[in-house]
Amino acid sequence: MYRTHNCGELRLTDAGKTVTLSGWIQRIRDLGGLLFIDLRDRYGVTQLFINPEQHNALYQQAKAYGREFVIQVIGKVSERSSRNPNMVTGDIEVIASDINLLNASITPPFTIEDDTDGGDDLRMQYRYLDIRRDPVRKNLLARHQVARAVREYMDGKGFVDVETPFLIKSTPEGARDFVVPSRLNEGQFYALPQSPQTFKQLLMVAGMDRYYQIVRCFRDEDLRADRQPEFTQIDCEMAFVDQEDVLNMFEGMVKHVFKSVRGINLSDFPRMSYADALKYYGNDKPDLRFGMQLIEITEIVKGRNFKVFDDAEYTAAIVAENCSEYTRKHLDELTEFVKRPQIGAGGLVYIRCATDGTYKSSVDKFYTQDDLKNIAAHCACKPGDLILILSGKQHKTRKAMSELRLEMGNRLGLRRKEDYKPLWVLDFPLLEWDEDDKRWNAMHHPFTSWKPEDESLMTDNPGAVRANAYDVVINGVELASGSIRIHNRAKQELMFRTIGLTDDEARYKFGFILNAFEYGAPPHGGIAFGFDRFCSIVTANLDYIRDFIAFPKNNAGRDVMLDAPSDIDLRLKNDLGLK
Amino acid sequence: MYRTHNCGELRLTDAGKTVTLSGWIQRIRDLGGLLFIDLRDRYGVTQLFINPEQHNALYQQAKAYGREFVIQVIGKVSERSSRNPNMVTGDIEVIASDINLLNASITPPFTIEDDTDGGDDLRMQYRYLDIRRDPVRKNLLARHQVARAVREYMDGKGFVDVETPFLIKSTPEGARDFVVPSRLNEGQFYALPQSPQTFKQLLMVAGMDRYYQIVRCFRDEDLRADRQPEFTQIDCEMAFVDQEDVLNMFEGMVKHVFKSVRGINLSDFPRMSYADALKYYGNDKPDLRFGMQLIEITEIVKGRNFKVFDDAEYTAAIVAENCSEYTRKHLDELTEFVKRPQIGAGGLVYIRCATDGTYKSSVDKFYTQDDLKNIAAHCACKPGDLILILSGKQHKTRKAMSELRLEMGNRLGLRRKEDYKPLWVLDFPLLEWDEDDKRWNAMHHPFTSWKPEDESLMTDNPGAVRANAYDVVINGVELASGSIRIHNRAKQELMFRTIGLTDDEARYKFGFILNAFEYGAPPHGGIAFGFDRFCSIVTANLDYIRDFIAFPKNNAGRDVMLDAPSDIDLRLKNDLGLK
Repeated sequence: MYRTHNCGELRLTDAGKTVTLSGWIQRIRDLGGLLFIDLRDRYGVTQLFINPEQHNALYQQAKAYGREFVIQVIGKVSERSSRNPNMVTGDIEVIASDINLLNASITPPFTIEDDTDGGDDLRMQYRYLDIRRDPVRKNLLARHQVARAVREYMDGKGFVDVETPFLIKSTPEGARDFVVPSRLNEGQFYALPQSPQTFKQLLMVAGMDRYYQIVRCFRDEDLRADRQPEFTQIDCEMAFVDQEDVLNMFEGMVKHVFKSVRGINLSDFPRMSYADALKYYGNDKPDLRFGMQLIEITEIVKGRNFKVFDDAEYTAAIVAENCSEYTRKHLDELTEFVKRPQIGAGGLVYIRCATDGTYKSSVDKFYTQDDLKNIAAHCACKPGDLILILSGKQHKTRKAMSELRLEMGNRLGLRRKEDYKPLWVLDFPLLEWDEDDKRWNAMHHPFTSWKPEDESLMTDNPGAVRANAYDVVINGVELASGSIRIHNRAKQELMFRTIGLTDDEARYKFGFILNAFEYGAPPHGGIAFGFDRFCSIVTANLDYIRDFIAFPKNNAGRDVMLDAPSDIDLRLKNDLGLK
Repeated sequence: MYRTHNCGELRLTDAGKTVTLSGWIQRIRDLGGLLFIDLRDRYGVTQLFINPEQHNALYQQAKAYGREFVIQVIGKVSERSSRNPNMVTGDIEVIASDINLLNASITPPFTIEDDTDGGDDLRMQYRYLDIRRDPVRKNLLARHQVARAVREYMDGKGFVDVETPFLIKSTPEGARDFVVPSRLNEGQFYALPQSPQTFKQLLMVAGMDRYYQIVRCFRDEDLRADRQPEFTQIDCEMAFVDQEDVLNMFEGMVKHVFKSVRGINLSDFPRMSYADALKYYGNDKPDLRFGMQLIEITEIVKGRNFKVFDDAEYTAAIVAENCSEYTRKHLDELTEFVKRPQIGAGGLVYIRCATDGTYKSSVDKFYTQDDLKNIAAHCACKPGDLILILSGKQHKTRKAMSELRLEMGNRLGLRRKEDYKPLWVLDFPLLEWDEDDKRWNAMHHPFTSWKPEDESLMTDNPGAVRANAYDVVINGVELASGSIRIHNRAKQELMFRTIGLTDDEARYKFGFILNAFEYGAPPHGGIAFGFDRFCSIVTANLDYIRDFIAFPKNNAGRDVMLDAPSDIDLRLKNDLGLK
């Protein structure tokens, strides 16, 4: 037996007990002959004490140990002379009477501390040491907590965890598939699932009624920061439901997770149409932790010979409260910000609403005090506030305005980590136009149904058709996305045709689900949560999604610890018919 | 809202309520104008009743419906005139006042009933209809129950569910890897994990202390019946443990699952060495539901001029109680059985111990009544019993005897499905000789440690080294397999060398774990359960492992529903650098 207790559980009430602990040496301090060792395991840190006057051999032995050595210690729990209130075990120490060295350690390439000196690459290469650090370990433990809370809720609601296959058929729509060459069927390939979408729908056709799975998904995308080629999804589907049933069920799930993991009571989620989200926040995942809504002023500002506004399809303002005293430097920074290529605005117009009731703007040449007052009134701008204005094509300007709004939110400290503002975004467009391929794409995915009242638009004006689709957004981040599905073969075929699949292609790729719809497919719908992101949102650690993944890949899709991907055996290549 | 209740929950106490149900039509009976519909969903079946005198239009409408149509019905719960005690909802029916057709169905290719007329291939092709059948649905629900019970136990014991990667490095030992060509790293490949073995060990090095995962694994083997290319494993690992700790922890887990899912209290698992398992049962996964142990009689039967026994390395008997009256036909069948190529015995010798105290054997020519009496006494054979004897090379004869023993167990009804006899098999050999490759192979896997007292044999006599390895066996089936691992670089390198890896190969394939062992690796060990098999054992449905998998592959590794594997896009092939 390696231990009677772990390194996080001994308290003053244990004083006098003889215990055995095992763990890693966090640090050793030799205070003029008195040796202290901080012994660490997953559960905490306990201080060991060796008195050379009592145990000189032990003292000599232990003095030679280094950081991250693994030892087993036998000793007596004793009250500390100077307690450490910052440690839960800080009231006691263990007076060692025997120590066994279980394993030595060479010097780690970075310090095993909260603020490590290890860079990202080094930490990933020695991930097994990185995970010993408190912040990473806590994130992995939190991930398990979130999964448990999700399962608790779903199990309680009668959802069945059904495992769907990983070796499936390649039917790429959108992202690229990872594929797996088949040895037994030479020249043929399996694909790894981008999501279990069709399987969960088949489970509804199969009468499973309520399904969920916390499941790995794969997308072979050109990688960007914090986008992993494999990621985990909480995948859910229900039969005999309309949109309202799904929203209620999963709003309940999110609330349960926040309550269970963080003790946070989320209030009911407001609902906003996609159109309103774009109108008031400039994007479809608004951060509702602060107001600063977009105010359209396209017409109000026309007719004053300011060509930019006169020619603009769309002009909008946001009001930054109490910012009328922003310096030239601040305003220049904001102008630079909106002109960055990722944002792409041509420039920024401001109006200072001074506390004395006067106005000062970057377009004073064109606008009188009355004009400015009129604009300010339209924006409900108070003395002391600052109006920021962008102008141009509507879609692009809204996006730029959204970025400016979020930047101002950051600058003004309005996006507090611990402040949670969830909402439902509803009524997404069914389709979006793909300029490159000159065809319609499914905005959500091609299994999403549309509003019955928009049916006639499917042929007349596909871009105007609204989907039965919904997103959960929290603090400007898309947490989940779902829809009521098509469950009728003719409608599904119409959808495939609309996005440019020939009937032959549709049958070849999706024949199994088209067939399934002919055998009594029930109405059904569902949702999928990004699990990695969910964990990072619940724990308010949004910036470190990668640290919620035990063994992540880098931005080039490589596992630098394993050194994968790599060459494979020539024999294996031959078996697979690869040259 | 599609329903107020499901089809399994209405009882007599609900009589008088107006309810809405949705589901599939199991069958329609038109009894001279009175129409009865059995409406089915996941939760049960409820009888609907339509009286044409009250609702003639409804009657005409419903009469046209067929099997597997999906309908929504509104009606009043009413006590049945003739109750059906075989249905939980059999006391009531719903008198329909309105029915909406939600979806029609063409005629299913097989009947949706417990005993379907659909063959295996058809059922797999239309798996979404097959799952509507009670037995398959119940197996999938049971699988979820088993998973929940496992998680409940593991969570309660402080194990952390950590997700390990699926896109890893190819390091085949034993079975072939499935590989995934990398687009971003042309010419290189990821592999799909055969198990998360090295990751769970790295998590122990990382200080996670207790890990588990219910995880998909992949093996590209030449397929046999009920061997799937992807399968699910309950994967577990613990740090700071010796073998005894692991056995206790996971014996507890198995007991918890049986108790929780089936209400069955398993008694403590007996323990048996690998050597004893072979000696007494002829194989390393003995079925302890019945005795009939192998009794070696090699020496006792020599010296009577019966050349077969005189020349044999090994001769053994089993005693079939009360079978002395077995007919010639029975004995011929058994002889044929042992002579089948899969078993490969040369022949079968029997001794009938008649109730009158005389003996009759197939080798009477060589053995006197006293000889036979002597053998019978050695076998503790009673009057009325039958002795069956095989002879030859020890290993092969034991295997054949094991098969004969199991066959006799079947014939005598001694292998009762509901009778559970678990045990631990311990002290496996570390290595086994590979005749084809002329080298030692790891019997469990190359991360398994050996008994310290056998250390010197590693060079002198590798085949005699005993591993710190253990299996859970229930009713002759291997449920789980595990070991205490090597946690020391030098020992791991010795192991790799012993199984024929050069130091360069070892570093190339397993450098990451060899390195990890230098940074304070704790002693650790674990176990992995075959989850698909676990489900089938717990539910006593051992013959249908495939029906615990929602979408299984056939024996050629194909998903006949999806028609996968398949060709892939030429563009995708080009992107991957595949010709």
